[in-house]
Amino acid sequence: MPHPAHWQKAIPSPSQQHRETALARQAQLTKPAGSLGRLETLAITLAALQHTDTPAADRISIAVFAADHGVCAEGISAFPQAVTGQMIANFVAGGAAISVMARHLQARLEVINLGTATPPPVSDGVINDSIAAGTANLARQSAMSTMQLEQALAAGDRAAQRAADQQAQLFIGGEMGIGNTTSASAVACALLAEPAVALAGPGTGLDVKGVSHKVTVIERALARHGDNREPLAVLSSLGGFEIAALTGAMIGCATRGIPVLVDGFIVTVAALAAVRLRPELREWLLFAHHSREPGHTRLLDALDAEPVLNLSMRLGEGSGAAVAVPVIRSACALHNGMATFADAGVNSAE
Amino acid sequence: MPHPAHWQKAIPSPSQQHRETALARQAQLTKPAGSLGRLETLAITLAALQHTDTPAADRISIAVFAADHGVCAEGISAFPQAVTGQMIANFVAGGAAISVMARHLQARLEVINLGTATPPPVSDGVINDSIAAGTANLARQSAMSTMQLEQALAAGDRAAQRAADQQAQLFIGGEMGIGNTTSASAVACALLAEPAVALAGPGTGLDVKGVSHKVTVIERALARHGDNREPLAVLSSLGGFEIAALTGAMIGCATRGIPVLVDGFIVTVAALAAVRLRPELREWLLFAHHSREPGHTRLLDALDAEPVLNLSMRLGEGSGAAVAVPVIRSACALHNGMATFADAGVNSAE
Repeated sequence: MPHPAHWQKAIPSPSQQHRETALARQAQLTKPAGSLGRLETLAITLAALQHTDTPAADRISIAVFAADHGVCAEGISAFPQAVTGQMIANFVAGGAAISVMARHLQARLEVINLGTATPPPVSDGVINDSIAAGTANLARQSAMSTMQLEQALAAGDRAAQRAADQQAQLFIGGEMGIGNTTSASAVACALLAEPAVALAGPGTGLDVKGVSHKVTVIERALARHGDNREPLAVLSSLGGFEIAALTGAMIGCATRGIPVLVDGFIVTVAALAAVRLRPELREWLLFAHHSREPGHTRLLDALDAEPVLNLSMRLGEGSGAAVAVPVIRSACALHNGMATFADAGVNSAE
Repeated sequence: MPHPAHWQKAIPSPSQQHRETALARQAQLTKPAGSLGRLETLAITLAALQHTDTPAADRISIAVFAADHGVCAEGISAFPQAVTGQMIANFVAGGAAISVMARHLQARLEVINLGTATPPPVSDGVINDSIAAGTANLARQSAMSTMQLEQALAAGDRAAQRAADQQAQLFIGGEMGIGNTTSASAVACALLAEPAVALAGPGTGLDVKGVSHKVTVIERALARHGDNREPLAVLSSLGGFEIAALTGAMIGCATRGIPVLVDGFIVTVAALAAVRLRPELREWLLFAHHSREPGHTRLLDALDAEPVLNLSMRLGEGSGAAVAVPVIRSACALHNGMATFADAGVNSAE
């Protein structure tokens, strides 16, 4: 690796000057002070991150990272492993939720294949960054080697560079990988020193018995892993290629000055690892939605994050983040487009 | 009044057949069952209300009703009464929050002047349905006469007819009226048999002392009004022209088969009165957001309503409903645009 590695590069500071200008503008707009609630804070935060007086979320880059998980051998998912490859094809064919949302938002969508057990039926339109045909079974051995971890982080950083090349005003990372809530829960447990039962949930749709088995599998993985809480060691031992790539992508966006809109459970785990690695990253992250996956609450608390939406979604792919984009766009439209009391000849509060 | 009056006309039933078709389609889309959460129920509900397999919220009609309140004489608002007229001008000039959002959503916006104490500085672009220069002071006498109530309800019904003429797929009612949280709180207290303290809040920005005074004023009004809970009697005695017009507009939309997206505190009070008058209206109402005005929670409970958003907004004008529109549009895009498991060649859950 070159020095500093891409995940060690400097993360710029948000602009205090633009934050203050945005705050002052909000106080002059024709509405009671504070009455736009979260829309005000979203616009002010984005103004500071984008170093601008006119925050915007018009140009969105969405990168969906897909990979398979050896831990599927333990029977921890409601779906067969072949679905990861099939969904890659569905992403590029336009039929998946995130594909529909990308069109709806006129956002750029890229799909990155980091390695599947069954090759996707199509490859046209897929960015091939394949590391291996899935991770090893994290219940029995380290999910990936140090070199594989570096490859995954670098794949994420390349996605951040492509977002920068497209002058993205906001980055969304998504994921697809049958079995990845098991991996993500294990990573979160290791980072937060929590037992599996605190973070494991139904994922794509396990019943109570299925969740109980998943907890057992994660506990075995945690016992094998031990109490090393160093983020890269945790990602390598318990993570997935797509989770590590998301960690790399988020840091890569922040180093390039691109705000990140964080999706649900899996992406929040990647964000937690990234923030543990680079605490300055935290202020570059906006949190899109509160997932129905029960462990998400614990993760959001750990990151002191208050998501924009709570729609009981639990799909992944970046879909929750995509659905939150119009709220951020509305916040920007209001911030940039409303009249001030002086402009409009309206009296302010007495 | 002709018989039946417009608010007594038949309200059509949602289509059970389209609801079932939409439910079945959601189960076949390439995602874990239920994983789109509220987006699924929004699409299914809209399919049933619109009697269609392809629900949509492209054509939106927003009607903002403005009027003044005699109860301002009691000093219950943080803003001077002249602001009602000034904001009417701001609405049509395009500088108010709802004006910005209407442009952003490419929605039709109309502004209806039901009567202000100070005439708006402009009238071009305003629909003049003026009843009087504001209501009487509801702390001391009935806010309006029976004839004025009928005029206000009819003004709302005309707005619903204009929405129908424009083939609106969704209607949003908004309001502006300095002092109208006092009137709305009084109406809610009378309908729900609650004391003023349970529903009065800061409105546009009263401090603790201001809220306490507002409670006293509402208690005086409630003592004068007595325990008549009949919705039209309550609206006439304690309401505002814009609140009664919203009641008339919501019923008018439902009778014409147009779903209504309910905004925050004031509009929810009008919805409560409307549902008390016409219980079949309830299923035509979608609730957009949870307002920061504290009494809103009690109103939502009374209507068994779970809003789409909770962004700590408390502006009125229909702004919270406007911000929720893109969530509904996303729900429709996903419902109509996603591939099924069969289409995409993706395995479903094992």
